[in-house]
Amino acid sequence: MEAIYRELGIDVKKHEELMNALGELYGKLFLERNNRPEAMGYFDKVMAEIHGKRIEELYQLRKSGRPLVGTFCIFVPEEIVISAGGACYGLCGGAQFTIPEAETHLPRNICPLIKSAYGFKLQRTCPYTQLADVIYGETTCEAKKKTWELLGKLHKVHVMHIPHMKGDTERELWLRELERFKEEMERIAGKPIGFEELKKGVEIVNAKRSAMKRLYELRAKDGCIPIAGLDVLLVNQISFYDDPVRFTEKVNELCQELEKRIERGMSVFPEGVAKILVAGSPMAPPNWKLHWIVEDSGAAVVAEEACIGHRYFRENVDISGCATEEEILQALLKRYSNIDCACFTPNHQRVKNIIRMCEEKKVDGVIYYTLSFCHTYNVEFKKVADALKERGIPVLKIETDYSMEDVEQIRTRVEAFVESLS
Amino acid sequence: MEAIYRELGIDVKKHEELMNALGELYGKLFLERNNRPEAMGYFDKVMAEIHGKRIEELYQLRKSGRPLVGTFCIFVPEEIVISAGGACYGLCGGAQFTIPEAETHLPRNICPLIKSAYGFKLQRTCPYTQLADVIYGETTCEAKKKTWELLGKLHKVHVMHIPHMKGDTERELWLRELERFKEEMERIAGKPIGFEELKKGVEIVNAKRSAMKRLYELRAKDGCIPIAGLDVLLVNQISFYDDPVRFTEKVNELCQELEKRIERGMSVFPEGVAKILVAGSPMAPPNWKLHWIVEDSGAAVVAEEACIGHRYFRENVDISGCATEEEILQALLKRYSNIDCACFTPNHQRVKNIIRMCEEKKVDGVIYYTLSFCHTYNVEFKKVADALKERGIPVLKIETDYSMEDVEQIRTRVEAFVESLS
Repeated sequence: MEAIYRELGIDVKKHEELMNALGELYGKLFLERNNRPEAMGYFDKVMAEIHGKRIEELYQLRKSGRPLVGTFCIFVPEEIVISAGGACYGLCGGAQFTIPEAETHLPRNICPLIKSAYGFKLQRTCPYTQLADVIYGETTCEAKKKTWELLGKLHKVHVMHIPHMKGDTERELWLRELERFKEEMERIAGKPIGFEELKKGVEIVNAKRSAMKRLYELRAKDGCIPIAGLDVLLVNQISFYDDPVRFTEKVNELCQELEKRIERGMSVFPEGVAKILVAGSPMAPPNWKLHWIVEDSGAAVVAEEACIGHRYFRENVDISGCATEEEILQALLKRYSNIDCACFTPNHQRVKNIIRMCEEKKVDGVIYYTLSFCHTYNVEFKKVADALKERGIPVLKIETDYSMEDVEQIRTRVEAFVESLS
Repeated sequence: MEAIYRELGIDVKKHEELMNALGELYGKLFLERNNRPEAMGYFDKVMAEIHGKRIEELYQLRKSGRPLVGTFCIFVPEEIVISAGGACYGLCGGAQFTIPEAETHLPRNICPLIKSAYGFKLQRTCPYTQLADVIYGETTCEAKKKTWELLGKLHKVHVMHIPHMKGDTERELWLRELERFKEEMERIAGKPIGFEELKKGVEIVNAKRSAMKRLYELRAKDGCIPIAGLDVLLVNQISFYDDPVRFTEKVNELCQELEKRIERGMSVFPEGVAKILVAGSPMAPPNWKLHWIVEDSGAAVVAEEACIGHRYFRENVDISGCATEEEILQALLKRYSNIDCACFTPNHQRVKNIIRMCEEKKVDGVIYYTLSFCHTYNVEFKKVADALKERGIPVLKIETDYSMEDVEQIRTRVEAFVESLS
């Protein structure tokens, strides 16, 4: 690894500091908990090796000329990267560690995810960032959109134009962006991506999303909660890093174990525990703050309506009728433009999805989570809250960043909320 | 007026409170100053009558079936509204007065302009808002974009999709939005807008922009500053409310007076005063805070690189070669898509424009102004600051809202900055 780190220009000393802090936090939040499914062992290992084994794999991929794409958004179509034999992954952006450095370039009052990610680049402490042939930004949120311009001075950055309304011309524009993305992947890979490759790429990602959906369905079933919300959050986070085929296999193994647990009625929470849906901004690792507080307060998180969560695996790409590359691109467009990101206006579908998830999981309450200064999710709260109130579903709004300073304040609010649900 | 207010559902008591506070502030910041050009008398009257005479005019226009469009953005093409015989105006959104009410629906940490405007609707204290046939929102900033969804429950709102990159498909999309806008105006007016009407609408607005540009050019000329920045800010603000033909006439009268002042070397500031360009977020009336502090600190504001300012009048619509309606729409598209709003990525043109304005006005320093939580202008600061530093132009960043709590803190920073320029 040392040689790879050197080649990537990693600041080894700072990186070690970061890894030590991460290891300590992980031990406390994950390894010390009881009753975790055995199959979580794999995911623990992946997290322990987050900047180790996987980086080596990616390094080898890159050596063999396959494209490596770093992203911050589920609008970037990983199917196309996988079609080119490459890897598409989420970049580091969940740690407070890099934020003070980022704030020398960026305003303090923008979302911590963006600051964290930008800080990782400034510090050179994220091997994923350093390895990326290209960072694919997009226009879903304005703080990100404008930060790409600064990040572009430090790394190769492309920006995908995601329109904010959904009409015919918008879909044309979006299709052009998918085509441009495919061309860029072909350029990096040095060879065209044909129908068969595209089909295979879609199938791999479909299988991954299906496995994650299966896991989602097992989270609160037949009165049994066989796995902690924290553990599922971890799996969802790892879906953005790991090799997709291996990951799918491991998630399915986990599901098998959970099915057995459900048969035996083996819940990790006491009967009658308050079931919580968390809706809102994405939580990049190691951002486990809210889930940890909620489950430490005696409630169970049974669903995440978020990009790192249900929004990611909700829908597969339907290529059953596709016979040409162009048709697969159209199928990708259909699937991606169906995403109910708060960047869209109007975005009625999201409210409906949240209500449906509440019903599916028979939740007792919703915690609406926004990363600080995430305007779109923050303003959309009112529409969601109004719809929930109409249906008698209690909701608590938490807006926070990555610092640990407000943990006790959030804990007090969450505890009071959980208590009110019983 | 009382009858009109009743018909519009104005909360008369609250409105009076607002007007009293406004009158007091206006007296202090404007009327008590010496050496103001005589021609400012007209604009003082307009401001004194901001919810009086102009509202009566608009009310009559509406009675006669002409469209009234309220907006918050210079991307909404007023030329088309004027073509239909109607009026396009900026909605109230510059006062702290309505913000506490808005914060019962909206997050506290979004831009004060949006909260203020939304609060005016909740409170029913803005006759412009109450009069509008339709409020035309747009997608330039995400807090606005999402707030339209809530505002749409209280008033008729249309949203114009402004793309955030500038390519061929984006221009197609934009043209469709202009066409949709024209159709909506025709629907309200109950008659088609033909070539002649469009041409006339463009000519009226071109004349207005030319007059404002003439004023801009006279602000610091031949070593003379014949008018205070506060007064020009006021004129720029009034351009969004007043009848465009009368306004143009009055601005040209003001310019004539200023030309005479320049001939006589009659400056409103002592020789050697520090000349400041203010760049950044728009200042809706009665947001006079920064200009007041700067000029009270002994410097002169000689230019505003802002939507309420140079960005609004920089460029006319060139219809010299147009023979059809479609060609005029294309000319509008060309002019509007040339705007260097921070919502675009990339937005190199803005940096160039700021540098050019600094050179034109031979400024001593730049104050980069962002409304709190205005991400696009806030993040874009670094690019602007880097370019200014490269050219040895000092820059101070001020981020603030409409409250008066930070006035002394800002004053201390501005005074130190001004002192450093001498």
